[in-house]
Amino acid sequence: MEKPLKLLHASLNGRVIVELRGGVEYQGVLDGYDVPHMNLVLKNADELVHTIKKGKHDKLIVRGDNIIYISP
Amino acid sequence: MEKPLKLLHASLNGRVIVELRGGVEYQGVLDGYDVPHMNLVLKNADELVHTIKKGKHDKLIVRGDNIIYISP
Amino acid sequence: MEKPLKLLHASLNGRVIVELRGGVEYQGVLDGYDVPHMNLVLKNADELVHTIKKGKHDKLIVRGDNIIYISP
Amino acid sequence: MEKPLKLLHASLNGRVIVELRGGVEYQGVLDGYDVPHMNLVLKNADELVHTIKKGKHDKLIVRGDNIIYISP
Amino acid sequence: MEKPLKLLHASLNGRVIVELRGGVEYQGVLDGYDVPHMNLVLKNADELVHTIKKGKHDKLIVRGDNIIYISP
Amino acid sequence: MEKPLKLLHASLNGRVIVELRGGVEYQGVLDGYDVPHMNLVLKNADELVHTIKKGKHDKLIVRGDNIIYISP
Amino acid sequence: MEKPLKLLHASLNGRVIVELRGGVEYQGVLDGYDVPHMNLVLKNADELVHTIKKGKHDKLIVRGDNIIYISP
Repeated sequence: MEKPLKLLHASLNGRVIVELRGGVEYQGVLDGYDVPHMNLVLKNADELVHTIKKGKHDKLIVRGDNIIYISP
Repeated sequence: MEKPLKLLHASLNGRVIVELRGGVEYQGVLDGYDVPHMNLVLKNADELVHTIKKGKHDKLIVRGDNIIYISP
Repeated sequence: MEKPLKLLHASLNGRVIVELRGGVEYQGVLDGYDVPHMNLVLKNADELVHTIKKGKHDKLIVRGDNIIYISP
Repeated sequence: MEKPLKLLHASLNGRVIVELRGGVEYQGVLDGYDVPHMNLVLKNADELVHTIKKGKHDKLIVRGDNIIYISP
Repeated sequence: MEKPLKLLHASLNGRVIVELRGGVEYQGVLDGYDVPHMNLVLKNADELVHTIKKGKHDKLIVRGDNIIYISP
Repeated sequence: MEKPLKLLHASLNGRVIVELRGGVEYQGVLDGYDVPHMNLVLKNADELVHTIKKGKHDKLIVRGDNIIYISP
Repeated sequence: MEKPLKLLHASLNGRVIVELRGGVEYQGVLDGYDVPHMNLVLKNADELVHTIKKGKHDKLIVRGDNIIYISP
């Protein structure tokens, strides 16, 4: 068994896909997170809305509330 | 009587269907969960939107917040 | 006076209707629940969307969050 | 001053109207409630959607989350 | 400075407008409230939906969750 | 650094704009607030819906839940 | 690893983009925040709705609840 936070921790410094409610997606390097909110820090993050690239961010603090899944 | 978390635990390493709000569904092997949030780790997960396959993920951390049901 | 959780407990092993937000309904045998979330385990559960049968599940963990009512 | 839970308690065994989000309404005899969730047990409950009768339930556990008002 | 709960308390026995999400409004005499939920008891309450009168209630327990504002 | 609650406190007795979800806005004198909910008391408050003035209130208790921002 | 709140703190006095649910965005100088709500104080903040500038605020208290991301 692999606990969600353990997998999240193992995903640090790797590229992840973060899917939010409303068809919004971020793809970037996971630079940090907090517990228990699962707020994330992403580096070099692309922002996609319904799979269309909308923007790029050097760093991003993503609130955990709106996250549907994180794909390492 | 079988408590929800006991059934969830018994479902580890088996294939589960995870239904989210908004017609989104994941089908994969249950690799982990946490308590009390019911965040899940799925392996080899298919992502379906209104029953149409949209993607595949080696590993997936699914937040418990958006889950409607888990079908072991 | 009959408290909600007492009635829920008395409904174990009986067939219940579980109505969720969004016109989704499950009909199955109540096999378990937890407190205080009111997550449920249903057996032999039919899934109905706007009264049309959409699927059948041997076992189902239904999160309490989305439940509107349980009818024993 | 009459506190909400005191009025709720005084309404036991009387017929109440329970209005939920989304135009759903239940009319039945208040058989129980819990604190602090305000989950309710209704007996002989009619279910109305936008004032049209949709169903009847001997007993109903209504989650407090979705309640807008209770009219004793 | 006048704290919200102090103003609410000072409004007891007076007529208040209670605005909810979704264009629903209640106008009645404030008969009680609780802390911290801000559930209310209203007497002789008119129910308005988008400013059109829809009903009248002798007494009403209004859950605090859905309240946008209370106007004493 | 200026903490949100410190700025809110410094805004007492001044005119503020309070933006809620759904295009609703209140403009009035900030007469009070509570912690941690950020419920507010406004005096001489105009109510605007999508920038059109809909009403005026001598006093208003606005629940913090629905607030998007407060502009002193 | 860089924790979300550490990055937020390091972003003080710098210009940030704050994206909210519903296509609303604020661009301003981060002047403060609180923990754990992540309510923010912004200075000289532009308000954009679907990328169109709608307003300007000297100071703004933005509730953390509605925030999707903060981009330093």
